[in-house]
Amino acid sequence: MAHLTASVEYGIHCLLLLAGAGESPASGRDLAEFQGVSPSFVAKIFSRLEKGGIVEASEGIRGGYRLARPTEKISVLSIVDAIEGRKPLFECQEIRERCALFGGAPPIWATRGVCSVHAVMLQAEKAMRDVLADCSLADLGVSVERTAPPSFGIDIKDWFDRRAEARGTARQAAAAARSGGRHP
Amino acid sequence: MAHLTASVEYGIHCLLLLAGAGESPASGRDLAEFQGVSPSFVAKIFSRLEKGGIVEASEGIRGGYRLARPTEKISVLSIVDAIEGRKPLFECQEIRERCALFGGAPPIWATRGVCSVHAVMLQAEKAMRDVLADCSLADLGVSVERTAPPSFGIDIKDWFDRRAEARGTARQAAAAARSGGRHP
Repeated sequence: MAHLTASVEYGIHCLLLLAGAGESPASGRDLAEFQGVSPSFVAKIFSRLEKGGIVEASEGIRGGYRLARPTEKISVLSIVDAIEGRKPLFECQEIRERCALFGGAPPIWATRGVCSVHAVMLQAEKAMRDVLADCSLADLGVSVERTAPPSFGIDIKDWFDRRAEARGTARQAAAAARSGGRHP
Repeated sequence: MAHLTASVEYGIHCLLLLAGAGESPASGRDLAEFQGVSPSFVAKIFSRLEKGGIVEASEGIRGGYRLARPTEKISVLSIVDAIEGRKPLFECQEIRERCALFGGAPPIWATRGVCSVHAVMLQAEKAMRDVLADCSLADLGVSVERTAPPSFGIDIKDWFDRRAEARGTARQAAAAARSGGRHP
């Protein structure tokens, strides 16, 4: 199994959509439909992104999620940590202290400092995290823009705007029908 | 859960013991007892290390495992890959092609090359693997020697030698008893 789950992949793709949406919030339901996944899956991811200070949620007909910070200030690492928690590369069990020679009472030198196996794993983890920390959502956006035609961003924005409008119109119609029912 | 399991930690500690044992093979059962784990757990790890060309197994009373290569030629990465298989940091689901705008028929530009999210993950994974590739079993051995007293290596070697001798003596006694039974 991979270290990082599909939640990270969907999370980043959703955030790239929000980055394209600018100031207009996008609903979790629309983000889910756009990516072809369940709304509950997106809700779970976004609840973590909100806790991690990556997105802000707003209520109301036109409510939804928007980025809490400019894309240059959102690193891939912060997204990964918000979604996955702080998953270590390696969890040291301190097995060096269980050596048969110590008979259950390891000497001080045997457990002093970080175990050398753990040390190289921490160094490898740091190298991995440094790469993710150095890449921002803005950098990813530039890569996407480089491959997509210029109209793609506009098409996406239109899709989300139409959905939000349709939802607004449907709610207004429902409210009018309810009001018509009460005062005939 | 950590990316790398406890098998990697026990595997590396066992290999450090083999490195200290020099030309004398160590039995899987003794390695397990020395670390305080089950022989079946060590057997599973060593079957992978043998397949990965890290250790060689020999049969007989004095049989067991020894390193297949000098410690300088065994990288931590090769141990990790032998034990865990090639576990990716991130498995790209190519979700970019499932965008609602494409209606199930993504255009060529949308799936050309590596997805930019996947690209940064591959770069992070490479950075992590490079650190593990640059550290050898010999390097880890030097770190352990730096913290342990000079007698520690000798004590370990003695422990394994005594175990192998005891096994040899026990088998000889059993063989003598069997032979005595057949020719009284």
